[in-house]
Amino acid sequence: MTGIPDKSTIEQAAHRIHNYIHHTPVLTSENLNTLAGAEIFFKCENFQKAGAFKSRGATNAVFSLSEVEIKKGVCTHSSGNHAAALSRAAKLRNAKAFIVMPESSSRVKIAAVKHYGGVITFCESTLASRESTLAMIKQETGSVEIHPYNDYRIIAGQATAAKELLESISQLELVMAPVGGGGLLSGTSLACKYFSPGTKVIAAEPQGADDAFRSYYGQTLVPSVNPKTIADGLLTSLGSLTFPIIQKNVHQIVTVGEEGIIAAMKLIWERMKILIEPSSAVPFAAILENKFEHKVKRIGIILSGGNVDLEKIPWYLPH
Amino acid sequence: MTGIPDKSTIEQAAHRIHNYIHHTPVLTSENLNTLAGAEIFFKCENFQKAGAFKSRGATNAVFSLSEVEIKKGVCTHSSGNHAAALSRAAKLRNAKAFIVMPESSSRVKIAAVKHYGGVITFCESTLASRESTLAMIKQETGSVEIHPYNDYRIIAGQATAAKELLESISQLELVMAPVGGGGLLSGTSLACKYFSPGTKVIAAEPQGADDAFRSYYGQTLVPSVNPKTIADGLLTSLGSLTFPIIQKNVHQIVTVGEEGIIAAMKLIWERMKILIEPSSAVPFAAILENKFEHKVKRIGIILSGGNVDLEKIPWYLPH
Repeated sequence: MTGIPDKSTIEQAAHRIHNYIHHTPVLTSENLNTLAGAEIFFKCENFQKAGAFKSRGATNAVFSLSEVEIKKGVCTHSSGNHAAALSRAAKLRNAKAFIVMPESSSRVKIAAVKHYGGVITFCESTLASRESTLAMIKQETGSVEIHPYNDYRIIAGQATAAKELLESISQLELVMAPVGGGGLLSGTSLACKYFSPGTKVIAAEPQGADDAFRSYYGQTLVPSVNPKTIADGLLTSLGSLTFPIIQKNVHQIVTVGEEGIIAAMKLIWERMKILIEPSSAVPFAAILENKFEHKVKRIGIILSGGNVDLEKIPWYLPH
Repeated sequence: MTGIPDKSTIEQAAHRIHNYIHHTPVLTSENLNTLAGAEIFFKCENFQKAGAFKSRGATNAVFSLSEVEIKKGVCTHSSGNHAAALSRAAKLRNAKAFIVMPESSSRVKIAAVKHYGGVITFCESTLASRESTLAMIKQETGSVEIHPYNDYRIIAGQATAAKELLESISQLELVMAPVGGGGLLSGTSLACKYFSPGTKVIAAEPQGADDAFRSYYGQTLVPSVNPKTIADGLLTSLGSLTFPIIQKNVHQIVTVGEEGIIAAMKLIWERMKILIEPSSAVPFAAILENKFEHKVKRIGIILSGGNVDLEKIPWYLPH
């Protein structure tokens, strides 16, 4: 795939991954609607295979490869949900996934990758170490690199979450997604453009990792420097492919603080009886804190994932 | 209602409450199936209105009352989910619910009752104080007492959870439920008898509150004395109406320890991304610990509720 995914590319992605991922439910809560002053439709990617929307993009990328291409496996560097999702997708094609992870990665994330048969190579926590280790693995194995977000096949796959949401809930005035590397956000903005042109897209980002906010309003791609947030899925910088799509198709980016993210996460756990990871709570936190003018009454939110280390629940941690 | 609910009584209950409760989903997890060595179908009453199956019985009881009967409201003593469920059901009929609760009740439970407009009278934590306070409230208000479980209208209401489960999942060899006062268990056993006669019923109970186990095998109703368990929904004793139904229609009762309950609860949170309260985890704990001969391969479990105090998550507590 050589250009920005068009409508039919996203439809093809949906078709390609259909048998390998969950068509996740859309849940609502009267209680949270009252608190928010709006009707909120939560697209539950926390129930997705491997626990996050990342399974959509990874599965689309892996199943886009020919028999020859997949033969020597796939590789990536990721300490998070993409690593597990890619391992699972590769396994579905009886291929290997070579995962470069920092030694500091959490016990839970390492276990998830191993569970799906991923072959882990540990590296140091620096970008330089990640990149050189990945280059070495690529050369040694001949595997195909699948970047966590800066890849049109990934973007097209992530777009299918919003596509499903728009198909099951009509007349959404607004769809919200969190933003880290921008794979989910760029895909979401494309899905809204193609499948529900009247629906606006607003992204929410932690204040402690606000490179997307600064890039969007500064109109130039700035990297994430020493980001610090409980929302560990949102630490990465926008990519060269995700940024232009976001610039053109996202209507607003808002930021929220750590306290707000934790409070929103806890509310969703408590009232909806579902587990979401901190990254998933960022858009709802923005609504609760009135971070944008929302006269809109029907809002879709992509709950990006549910992979929480239950030994490190945020409100039990010092912060 | 004067006798043990028959098939049509349970069907009427289902019809009566249909518009006021959730038809909760049945979820499965490949991962947990592998761990358990069986296919497990979880009936998610943690997603029920007011967070527990108790809404079924309370709604059935309240909507069974005539306009004249409901006029002066309803009353009960309960420190738990029945209190919130009854408050909610009464509100749906524009009636008052008078709730007697021990002063020691948790912040979260008190908030839930208030949220649904229940009128709380606090009492001491002894049975004598509960009963005398309730008698006083009854006399003062003229309200109708709705016991948390020793009431055929409640039993018929709770039976509708298993009825729905049996309707959506065919050929279950076994259905499991936790047992406290026995409202859910007796209802579940009747539903299986009427709607799927080949399906066995096994109850699971905490070792620290094993009055049902002792009553069932001792063939005489013994009360729960100083029960102690993290499964706070299961502290009560069987009742004079629930015990005979259980004696006749339940096939086995097994007990599990605290560590097993907490481990099972944590596994369900982690793998299924749903919140359940400790009581809900007791049947799955029994499966994981091989507490009974289970050559059976299709097992339904009623996840009774999801009301957890998120400041008191069991694996963060000393135990």
